[in-house]
Amino acid sequence: MAVEPGLLYLDDNSLGRLTRRARRRLAEVVDGEWGTGLIRSWDTWVDLPTRVGDAIAAHLVGARPGEVVVGDSTTVNLYKAASAAIAARPGARAVVTDDDNFPTDRYVLEGLAARHGLEYREVASDPVHGPDPGALVPALAGAAVLCLSHVAYRSAALADMAGLTRLAHDHGALALWDLSHAAGSVPVDLTGTGADLAVGCTYKYLDGGPGAPAFTYVRRELQATLRQPIWGWFGRRDQFAMGPGYAPVDGIASWLTGTPAVLGLVCVEEGVGLLAEAGIGRLRAKGMALTSLAVDLTDAWLVTQGYTVASPRDPDRRGSHVTLAHPDAERIVADAIARAGVVPDFRAPDRIRLGPAPLASRFVDVWDALDRLARL
Amino acid sequence: MAVEPGLLYLDDNSLGRLTRRARRRLAEVVDGEWGTGLIRSWDTWVDLPTRVGDAIAAHLVGARPGEVVVGDSTTVNLYKAASAAIAARPGARAVVTDDDNFPTDRYVLEGLAARHGLEYREVASDPVHGPDPGALVPALAGAAVLCLSHVAYRSAALADMAGLTRLAHDHGALALWDLSHAAGSVPVDLTGTGADLAVGCTYKYLDGGPGAPAFTYVRRELQATLRQPIWGWFGRRDQFAMGPGYAPVDGIASWLTGTPAVLGLVCVEEGVGLLAEAGIGRLRAKGMALTSLAVDLTDAWLVTQGYTVASPRDPDRRGSHVTLAHPDAERIVADAIARAGVVPDFRAPDRIRLGPAPLASRFVDVWDALDRLARL
Repeated sequence: MAVEPGLLYLDDNSLGRLTRRARRRLAEVVDGEWGTGLIRSWDTWVDLPTRVGDAIAAHLVGARPGEVVVGDSTTVNLYKAASAAIAARPGARAVVTDDDNFPTDRYVLEGLAARHGLEYREVASDPVHGPDPGALVPALAGAAVLCLSHVAYRSAALADMAGLTRLAHDHGALALWDLSHAAGSVPVDLTGTGADLAVGCTYKYLDGGPGAPAFTYVRRELQATLRQPIWGWFGRRDQFAMGPGYAPVDGIASWLTGTPAVLGLVCVEEGVGLLAEAGIGRLRAKGMALTSLAVDLTDAWLVTQGYTVASPRDPDRRGSHVTLAHPDAERIVADAIARAGVVPDFRAPDRIRLGPAPLASRFVDVWDALDRLARL
Repeated sequence: MAVEPGLLYLDDNSLGRLTRRARRRLAEVVDGEWGTGLIRSWDTWVDLPTRVGDAIAAHLVGARPGEVVVGDSTTVNLYKAASAAIAARPGARAVVTDDDNFPTDRYVLEGLAARHGLEYREVASDPVHGPDPGALVPALAGAAVLCLSHVAYRSAALADMAGLTRLAHDHGALALWDLSHAAGSVPVDLTGTGADLAVGCTYKYLDGGPGAPAFTYVRRELQATLRQPIWGWFGRRDQFAMGPGYAPVDGIASWLTGTPAVLGLVCVEEGVGLLAEAGIGRLRAKGMALTSLAVDLTDAWLVTQGYTVASPRDPDRRGSHVTLAHPDAERIVADAIARAGVVPDFRAPDRIRLGPAPLASRFVDVWDALDRLARL
């Protein structure tokens, strides 16, 4: 759906748009399935977490059927995944991430480390180019899990998923990837890179709406051995027998916990459907062109005003957003929103993120947004 | 909102109805706040978890401001609460619940016990009258936490929250209450009974819609010492600084984890608003009358057909649903839905639950539903 006339929305990497498809589907689900079908609609809702998971697997993250499920928040899913990894490495002494990883990833790992008597190791990353294998090597000694973002939330640096997963495996650690800024914006190959676990957000490029449930990937070969810690009724074999004792259902559905959020799930299904139709290859090509245009216009118009490009300049090395640094970033973003009809976002202390959506943003939107920033 | 003409919906204790208020609010939030406001709407959304929590506290569960927050599922909230209780009792040897507690409660506790090397103790409850203090006493020796439901999901037995909380405290355990079948159906007095922790569902009597986020209560005096295990960015002090290291925000918001589900939250807010206007005292009186009518009609029309009442007969001792037992319960419920336009629910192996909502169900609905069951 079009945003309000004149608004240049460059924050799809924080909250994606309301699509016509999601709006129509929500109306059907609210009036028809909830309002009229009531409890009887669970016959159709019960498959949503695995069905939407399979669509994400097939079209966005390079996984096989039965490897992705949608439910709970990214934070809770990270907790489940990292906790399962820790339980699978009983002799391990540490968990590892990088200091530029998304805050909730760092906090979840820190909390789990504290609870399980492990060392929490946060490796310094390059603020523009992301995780450095050389710095990670010493940290990985005795690690249970290495948790990194495929696309860095600040700089958009695209991590080498295959190489870093191999590095984790060489040290006996499991590799857990946060795909929140990658899913729907860059091609992801979970199968090919050997990744063990992954989680990702659905309210950014997947257009699932505010607080829509996140996804979890568990490699098929690990599903019989990795066990998530929150034993809930939606993950239990023969759920509605409500019998004594927990026994997980086979497969990825054992990562479900409580009742999934239906209104969010159906919006995610529509968002993934739209991305699948566009095709991740074409979206990636457009994303690279959009962000390259933003970099070029920054060089042409903004560098003289104290801006610097704080994302990798090589489009192959970054996701679908571009980050600029400026000492007055906070004021600039506030002014852009309040006075210029441009919505970027601010990341403390001095970063401005421009996140056009390959699906919805036009080149002229990027041009006009940078033009308005230059005139501020 | 009225359900379809002729349908007698007696399953509000599984999934509450779509209200006109929720429908209108959703449309505003979807089109206005998400579709138009986009990321800027987080200024209004960010307070939802605590604001809706305060409304639940004031109108439904007898808690004080700043003691209830809404987010995550009942299962995840149970996990957080029980995990915090276990961490607060480092010398404890066990967790305790009853065998008639809701399945997800039992599974969550079993999982936590397994992970932390504790004994999982499941005490036999009376299938009609609920937990028996005499049976609980030996189980509470060395327990970290006693987790019970205030209203039993099968029989509707109303537990003595004050007495059982005292019993837990006498044994050094924390008392964790599941209010899923109680909130909105019976008055709850968390402050007066001395309860330590509670969780509850919002898609039953609170009409929050399928998979709406659940609530968590933490007694004010315990908030500084109890610490939940999932350290996420929504629970961190100065969240958007995204700084290094986790430090929980003061108060109940430290129990938040990831991004809250906005579409569900706004429906919960509308449902709680409606219940608050009606007043829990009046709802309770009507609920007792509705369920007493169901018991009387069962005695008059159904007992000769092999039905028995499997809920407490004293309305003071039960919540707002009535459970019948019948050897052919599964077939009867299927037939009632398919052929008689009556929606009760089936609980294995032989129970039929009739859950009229005090807010929405009429006495004639109960009369007609029992009449149709009698004619099946």
